[in-house]
Amino acid sequence: MYKRRTLNPVPHTRLNTDRIRAAREAINPVFLNTPLYRCEPLEPHLGCAISIKLETANPVRCFKGRGTEIVASQQTRGNELVCASAGNLGQALAWSGRARDLNVTVVASHKAPKAKLDRIRALGATLEVLEADFDTARDRAVEIAQHRGIRLVEDSLDIETCEGAAAIGLELVEAAHKLDTVLIALGGGAMATGIGHVVKELAPHVEVVCVQPQGAPAMTRSWREKRVITTDSTNTIADGVAGRRPIPEVLEDLLLVADDAVLVEEESIIRGMRMLFDHAGLVVEPSAALGVAAILEDRERFANKRVATIVCGGNVDMDAYHQWVMTGRTG
Amino acid sequence: MYKRRTLNPVPHTRLNTDRIRAAREAINPVFLNTPLYRCEPLEPHLGCAISIKLETANPVRCFKGRGTEIVASQQTRGNELVCASAGNLGQALAWSGRARDLNVTVVASHKAPKAKLDRIRALGATLEVLEADFDTARDRAVEIAQHRGIRLVEDSLDIETCEGAAAIGLELVEAAHKLDTVLIALGGGAMATGIGHVVKELAPHVEVVCVQPQGAPAMTRSWREKRVITTDSTNTIADGVAGRRPIPEVLEDLLLVADDAVLVEEESIIRGMRMLFDHAGLVVEPSAALGVAAILEDRERFANKRVATIVCGGNVDMDAYHQWVMTGRTG
Repeated sequence: MYKRRTLNPVPHTRLNTDRIRAAREAINPVFLNTPLYRCEPLEPHLGCAISIKLETANPVRCFKGRGTEIVASQQTRGNELVCASAGNLGQALAWSGRARDLNVTVVASHKAPKAKLDRIRALGATLEVLEADFDTARDRAVEIAQHRGIRLVEDSLDIETCEGAAAIGLELVEAAHKLDTVLIALGGGAMATGIGHVVKELAPHVEVVCVQPQGAPAMTRSWREKRVITTDSTNTIADGVAGRRPIPEVLEDLLLVADDAVLVEEESIIRGMRMLFDHAGLVVEPSAALGVAAILEDRERFANKRVATIVCGGNVDMDAYHQWVMTGRTG
Repeated sequence: MYKRRTLNPVPHTRLNTDRIRAAREAINPVFLNTPLYRCEPLEPHLGCAISIKLETANPVRCFKGRGTEIVASQQTRGNELVCASAGNLGQALAWSGRARDLNVTVVASHKAPKAKLDRIRALGATLEVLEADFDTARDRAVEIAQHRGIRLVEDSLDIETCEGAAAIGLELVEAAHKLDTVLIALGGGAMATGIGHVVKELAPHVEVVCVQPQGAPAMTRSWREKRVITTDSTNTIADGVAGRRPIPEVLEDLLLVADDAVLVEEESIIRGMRMLFDHAGLVVEPSAALGVAAILEDRERFANKRVATIVCGGNVDMDAYHQWVMTGRTG
């Protein structure tokens, strides 16, 4: 996987692999070197060799701690931070902030799972819940930052959030795993551009495929049309990736590193969650099943390939989870 | 945690920490450096600080791969191996054997979960299922080994199986985690003596508490009476630790490294599994919930302590799991 390294063209994104390596030093090891393993019991159901990169076994049950550790460790101006969050960034920033005596304010949509909002509060952050969606929460966070003169942490736009996710990419290419394709959930784009940058620089033969729900397709449509396309609303259970307004800088990076971006049905996301539960023993949130959903919708494309999928989060409301995963169980 | 290291008396077990460190080199990294993290959402339910050492996110969904990697890497006599297994050792030996072109025969009880037996077969091992319990399977494995002149791998008796588990102990003491107590599922004793040896040598102030089901208490009773006590039968859902006949050499080691051995009720094991699912998002087999069960049965003892529990396996029949974990769910 490394042989061609010196010959690879470096993708001219906002990211830099040396800087990613340096930033990784700031991340609490509890978020790093997460399990990466082939999950053979899933394979008869997917028709390809599937490896899991598991980002749920840490204090915030998602990958976002990688980025917030970098953010919080670099905090120099005051001791306050604010972010908008679909639920996971807020938890992670609250965790990283608490470890460094920083005051964290999180703005979230009332649509965020209760489990995520509860954890943000439990971790000591100030939580403001809006009767609006994630993109409106972003506006509100900007307002708070300007009004109080404190740092705004913008997921996917702030380079640290991408660098944190990029550390997943380093772990993927450093592993002995031979891969043809990596499937990455696509929301704001931090994970896709972060991992994508590293993979395209260090293992460019590995295909980078982003996966988004049909019900929240703004970034995928933007990638396809090579310009920002917004939507009026979102309609998906994959709360972690339900954005309407792609960030132009992030789209530009995504255009440089993604080989493809695909959209999947809600039903496939649910089937993916159920498979990960039944055959891999993993409790995942909908966004973390997007990769499996993509395989289910296009088995031919992935047939016999060596595919890795990032299981990026496990924060779900258990009642909803029961309904998605247990309903219709035939035993 | 390391300050007193040079002054620590080395427990005179069959294990040796330098040899454990050396043996660790033979283990495929996919089984090593497993997640260790504090799980705060569980804490209000347990009344103590609880850290999870997660051994389920690997190709055999349990810790046994650590030991079978050492066994298989040292195989010099022929290319055949046989073991008796409650289900997890057999899977792990099949995995390690397949990676090295070794023929593996596993003898198991018909009482072993179907999920475990299916995986043993899927990994290419020859599986012999007896209409008898685990200890009878042990006798049969001895017979096969003698008859065919091949290596018998005996869990807990063979030092490699203990050394593999001991690598968990190294990771525990090498982590920055400050601990008061480590809770370890007790069956044949490989995990308890392996981890116990390392902890008692390198972090002797950490209390080593073994946990066994009331329904399979032979080793705990033996530890308490300081002599081997067998039972006529076992009656527990914790199939991974359901042995009747403790091995004298293992008991001797356990007497040197365990600070306590406790027995828990079946109901507590089920409550533990349910809590790990609801609050930690972890699908675990009954044996992996023994530590949480011990806390539930004696909250006062562990109150406000810093406790780690080894979540040692996640191989369950999903139908049984549903019945244990979902039944009686109030939502």
